[in-house]
Amino acid sequence: MHEPSFGGSEWLYLKECLDSTFVSSVGKFVDRFESELASFTGAGHAVAVVNGTAALHIALKLAGVRTDDEVLIPALTFVATANAVSYCGATPHLVDSEESTLGMDAARLRAHLVSQTEQRVGSCVNRATGRIIRAMVPMHTLGHPVDLDGLLAVAKDFNIAMVEDAAESLGSYYRGQHTGTFGLLGILSFNGNKTITTGGGGAILTNDPELARRAKHLTTTAKVPHRWEFVHDELGYNYRMPNINAALGCAQLEQLADFLNSKRALFERYRNAFATVLGVRVVAEPVNCHSNYWLQTLLLDESLVLQRDDILAATNDAGLMTRPAWTPMHRLTPFSRCPSMSLRGVESLTSRLINLPSSSFLLNRTVERGDFK
Amino acid sequence: MHEPSFGGSEWLYLKECLDSTFVSSVGKFVDRFESELASFTGAGHAVAVVNGTAALHIALKLAGVRTDDEVLIPALTFVATANAVSYCGATPHLVDSEESTLGMDAARLRAHLVSQTEQRVGSCVNRATGRIIRAMVPMHTLGHPVDLDGLLAVAKDFNIAMVEDAAESLGSYYRGQHTGTFGLLGILSFNGNKTITTGGGGAILTNDPELARRAKHLTTTAKVPHRWEFVHDELGYNYRMPNINAALGCAQLEQLADFLNSKRALFERYRNAFATVLGVRVVAEPVNCHSNYWLQTLLLDESLVLQRDDILAATNDAGLMTRPAWTPMHRLTPFSRCPSMSLRGVESLTSRLINLPSSSFLLNRTVERGDFK
Repeated sequence: MHEPSFGGSEWLYLKECLDSTFVSSVGKFVDRFESELASFTGAGHAVAVVNGTAALHIALKLAGVRTDDEVLIPALTFVATANAVSYCGATPHLVDSEESTLGMDAARLRAHLVSQTEQRVGSCVNRATGRIIRAMVPMHTLGHPVDLDGLLAVAKDFNIAMVEDAAESLGSYYRGQHTGTFGLLGILSFNGNKTITTGGGGAILTNDPELARRAKHLTTTAKVPHRWEFVHDELGYNYRMPNINAALGCAQLEQLADFLNSKRALFERYRNAFATVLGVRVVAEPVNCHSNYWLQTLLLDESLVLQRDDILAATNDAGLMTRPAWTPMHRLTPFSRCPSMSLRGVESLTSRLINLPSSSFLLNRTVERGDFK
Repeated sequence: MHEPSFGGSEWLYLKECLDSTFVSSVGKFVDRFESELASFTGAGHAVAVVNGTAALHIALKLAGVRTDDEVLIPALTFVATANAVSYCGATPHLVDSEESTLGMDAARLRAHLVSQTEQRVGSCVNRATGRIIRAMVPMHTLGHPVDLDGLLAVAKDFNIAMVEDAAESLGSYYRGQHTGTFGLLGILSFNGNKTITTGGGGAILTNDPELARRAKHLTTTAKVPHRWEFVHDELGYNYRMPNINAALGCAQLEQLADFLNSKRALFERYRNAFATVLGVRVVAEPVNCHSNYWLQTLLLDESLVLQRDDILAATNDAGLMTRPAWTPMHRLTPFSRCPSMSLRGVESLTSRLINLPSSSFLLNRTVERGDFK
């Protein structure tokens, strides 16, 4: 589906990292990776961690999410979004998606909150459960920026903190600003299937220096600096990215512009290839957005819904890895009883969506081999 | 304090890993590392994860630890032991240490449980709090095996599950059997300061195939295998060790026997060096035990307690990294109100203990440079 490329300085930096013997939680590549991530995204601060799930867990804690809160998340997402909410002792509250972005539908969410919640002492309370809706986690689905203008307005009007799940959208921009930098905090992922990889890794983004300091503290076992004493002043986590993984990340970041160009070119190629096929379209970036085209996606017309599984089976049988959308959260056992708005948009999208092979090097391979359709 | 050595196939395996493009959560080095860990320790199964803290979190969940339970842990430990208990929603219950092992004092723990707990429907209940004491986590302090015979008997007599924290004791044996394989589950750590390192990493050990299957499931987002569907059947975690870190681990494991020999030789050297110094002794392995001598430790006589900080300051000022014991858990803000037995053993040990530089290559460097005292 998405295979990484290692054509840059990966080798050199890994060797440098080994030779320094600093492969673990202290080392110059971690600092450098964080600094370069902040610079690339325009975020004030980036804190590198073991993976995107850990990043989201800490970002939610820093946004004030506590036991028995609710957190608005898209029903159409990878399970990590819902899991991170659960780690805080909170409950996901599922939000529908709109077709133009595949992400949270701001207008329908607003109508849902108007009818289902009330403000109590500056907090948005779900009348049905009595719980505070503390945060929302819009996710930039498959790399396509969500409707941030609409969602930021909802967050402001209903007193809900925004934590952006930009796990899939490194290199994606909304009105010229990098995704993950609009909310109070944002998170990135560098899992093996992402646009760049560190083996396993993630990062917390924020413009608030105090939140950045807290993020670093909480992800490094809340240890208070001292020449030799081991003092930990609150419940902390062992979430720091090892230096050897950051070394890989530094090398990958240097190639990000090339990866993004290749992925955009692959999108154009897919779009042209499917232009004459009736009843399907290749998902394109939303208006005013610049997508990283992390995963290339085919959207079938309603009339072709019954053929989706045949297409999946035929392509996979032929050795071409295609995938449906994630099983939406309300259909997973651990989240099937979460509070939710009507999810008709998600139901429609998941029945019609097929992800296509999306590795950044596919286009070159195509041209070389001439065997790509 | 403890610097890793990379003198084996690290380079070769990292290159092989990069060339395969499988750097992330799937790959042959993860399987190989798990298989070799099981083989080395004699455990039935090993599951590689992102770090020792994550390993302990999942091991405790699999031992049945739930919200509002209590878990017996040594007051003298690294904070990760207490943190992992907290992640389960449970409360650490602090146990004193004995001087011969630096670990949990089985006889005094038994007396404490006799006086403070009662059995209710097959569970050990703390009468003062009304909470079930579900598990105990003996830790093999600085690599020295704890009194497992004594603690296993307490666990059995009081219906308490044992999870061994062997984070520091890879290569340490109790009556000829590897530490971490006596309890229902055990855990290892491969942090940068450990006997072998994967950058960041840990493992869960168990002889129970069903617990091993559950450990792998829970640490891989509880995803149910399917050709293309994303089904997760319970709350899972993103704790799997990346393949690139496992590649490092495979190379390190090949050198473990050499590391262990060097560390034992370094102990002998320290012991001889301090043999003529009045009022101090170098901590040696307990009776019937074979220690990995992870950290070399000096124990001062009571008469020298007031000089401990002067020794720490003088050695650190001279560029020789020495460290006191961890701040014991009852002196850390997040755990200062945990239930506890009397901790007079820990109070005495922490006032008298100094850790010495312990890298496995120190002895060779000494011989080469002749500047080591």
